[in-house]
Amino acid sequence: MTTRLQPDSERFPVVGIVGAGPLARLMIQAAIPLGIGVRVLAERADDPAALVCPNVDIGMPNNARHLREFAARCDVVTFDHELVYLDALAEIEAGGGIVRPGAQALRYARDRLYQRTECKRAGLPVPEFAEAPHFPAIDEFVQRHGWPVVVKSQQGGYDGHGVWVLEDANEARDFFDATAGTGVDLMLERWVRIDRELAVLVARRPGGESVTYPVVETVQRGGICHEVIAPAPVTPEIAARARLLGEQIAELTQAVGVIAIEMFLVGDELLINEVATRPHHSGHFSIEGCATSQFDNHLRAVLDWPLGPTDLLAPFAVMANLLGEGRDSLAPRIPRALAAGPPSARWGGVHPHLYGAEALLGRKMGHVTALGDDLEETRARAAQAAALLTGRAT
Amino acid sequence: MTTRLQPDSERFPVVGIVGAGPLARLMIQAAIPLGIGVRVLAERADDPAALVCPNVDIGMPNNARHLREFAARCDVVTFDHELVYLDALAEIEAGGGIVRPGAQALRYARDRLYQRTECKRAGLPVPEFAEAPHFPAIDEFVQRHGWPVVVKSQQGGYDGHGVWVLEDANEARDFFDATAGTGVDLMLERWVRIDRELAVLVARRPGGESVTYPVVETVQRGGICHEVIAPAPVTPEIAARARLLGEQIAELTQAVGVIAIEMFLVGDELLINEVATRPHHSGHFSIEGCATSQFDNHLRAVLDWPLGPTDLLAPFAVMANLLGEGRDSLAPRIPRALAAGPPSARWGGVHPHLYGAEALLGRKMGHVTALGDDLEETRARAAQAAALLTGRAT
Repeated sequence: MTTRLQPDSERFPVVGIVGAGPLARLMIQAAIPLGIGVRVLAERADDPAALVCPNVDIGMPNNARHLREFAARCDVVTFDHELVYLDALAEIEAGGGIVRPGAQALRYARDRLYQRTECKRAGLPVPEFAEAPHFPAIDEFVQRHGWPVVVKSQQGGYDGHGVWVLEDANEARDFFDATAGTGVDLMLERWVRIDRELAVLVARRPGGESVTYPVVETVQRGGICHEVIAPAPVTPEIAARARLLGEQIAELTQAVGVIAIEMFLVGDELLINEVATRPHHSGHFSIEGCATSQFDNHLRAVLDWPLGPTDLLAPFAVMANLLGEGRDSLAPRIPRALAAGPPSARWGGVHPHLYGAEALLGRKMGHVTALGDDLEETRARAAQAAALLTGRAT
Repeated sequence: MTTRLQPDSERFPVVGIVGAGPLARLMIQAAIPLGIGVRVLAERADDPAALVCPNVDIGMPNNARHLREFAARCDVVTFDHELVYLDALAEIEAGGGIVRPGAQALRYARDRLYQRTECKRAGLPVPEFAEAPHFPAIDEFVQRHGWPVVVKSQQGGYDGHGVWVLEDANEARDFFDATAGTGVDLMLERWVRIDRELAVLVARRPGGESVTYPVVETVQRGGICHEVIAPAPVTPEIAARARLLGEQIAELTQAVGVIAIEMFLVGDELLINEVATRPHHSGHFSIEGCATSQFDNHLRAVLDWPLGPTDLLAPFAVMANLLGEGRDSLAPRIPRALAAGPPSARWGGVHPHLYGAEALLGRKMGHVTALGDDLEETRARAAQAAALLTGRAT
């Protein structure tokens, strides 16, 4: 594999994506114009990306042999998610395979305690945290930081999974009783009163060259992002600090590809929340909203190609997530949603992205992006199309 | 097949594309976000669209059985090119299959004499023309219109194929001697001094609802379009007449999907040159340049879904064609081309679309689009990226 990704290769390169979810599907869209071949490692033949990819390997991201065989068929391996067997990736890298981001960088996204520890060591702002091997650990933590306390699983977790807020000692005791013996390693975090949640994306090449996307606000409900607003409605000074923080973490992780940093804005203080070493739903607005999308720049970065500009094209871009409301398909609702918004205008219309997945309650079925000159009109247009697609409006 | 394209279908619809060339490939890109399934009828497994489509039937567009079997697997059939067996399509339609545009509309693109005759009958401006069953026919034509005379094949032909300019009677005699017995039906056209070539695209739904794209100038070399400039640098009055002419032809043909009308501007007179009943290279600029691309609106139109706005997003959009210069691949030249243009600017960067085809002299390998505020800078940026990709610049 090592000898294949040559800058003077006569072949179009093949990027392998571990995982075939929505992000892989959106990467495929970006790969076609650049002539990049894509192979996906899918768990199921009807995964969102497998439906639109002619080169599908069925296999598991935690199976060393599946990963090895998959990597051997690709010039460079990248990811739809972080829930991958890291030791197997490290072996592939040791054998000369090109894995971007590499196993070491992925650990920042896989292992929350590691991420917090490394960020703190680098002097970057994180909420106060501690390991929580057992219930008594919480006592000492509370004495310093008070109730409530946020408990997180150390590994994996996203979209509110693996995060619990404990209000008092009784809740904490019950929680530790319930989780004892499950093998889930836990950590504690100081609870903070969040004013806004922000996110910033950086795309970084192997040599360190990087570009940074406009800072966005992510609007959450129940731990799941429902809406992304670009640019974030914050002062230029806060936006500049958020960008810088994103760039510092990109450098710290040495990740190659897109890195997404979610942050809490508490007063005018920024605290790192999550780090994802891959394209991220907070960057979906960039497909129509930016000169170069996050998926385009992710592919360019992992191939060590020049990155494209990240400027916003319209004054505002708003992304609304489509979460499944039940078992019925979105398909029959598409025509009504396409008619949402003004029929003709420079930024008119809406841009649905449907992931082709079977509808399930709470599943991410797609997203809709709207561009506009007026933030509230743009939000309303995106929200209206999303409501029509999910069946909340008719 | 007839019962499948129901507005309340729970399934995402499947659009079948006859032909798997660049246009089919670009349609697939547009289909993914809308969740539309695509099946292609490809002549070869390595055709540009077959490389990026998981549902490929290998077959010939002039084989009735191949078309019939293909249509049976799709909700609606559309086209990458017009070189299709029209009688077989008419039979599929007669059997209740949904073919868009239909066989009757495709005839406008297949049969130049029919198109000229029908346009003239409808009072639309075409160059003076006549059938040319044999050499003596040219005499009468020349007596009315003088030399030179343009001779065209009645059927098919594009990119300068099937078009000859004869300067005098000697050239004409030699030409008719050489073509006698080849079975090619010919027609004559008055030669006109072309000031500019313009094109306009209309997307039309089955009920007649339509949207019209900005009028563009197409810059030709040797009968092949090298560059498209949007909007065309003509007066608003001429642009309005060109749009109207496009809409009149869309109505005349009753075509469903995108219809492209190429025109000559002679002084301030517009004359119809070619009619294509499909997406067209003169509309590639719309992928990045317009609120809704021609491929997006083509798919929406053939599915009878609401059409999207066609407004230009940037002041100027320029498309440069990439024609193969030999057998060597474009792949190693991508990184240099991506670096063309300013590294950061709202309309910065370039947007390559590579069709994945093996390089051959004169073959369309892809195109590059640039957006900008200044026409000459935008043209230069697109041309520079195209030169880097084709190896004319290093």
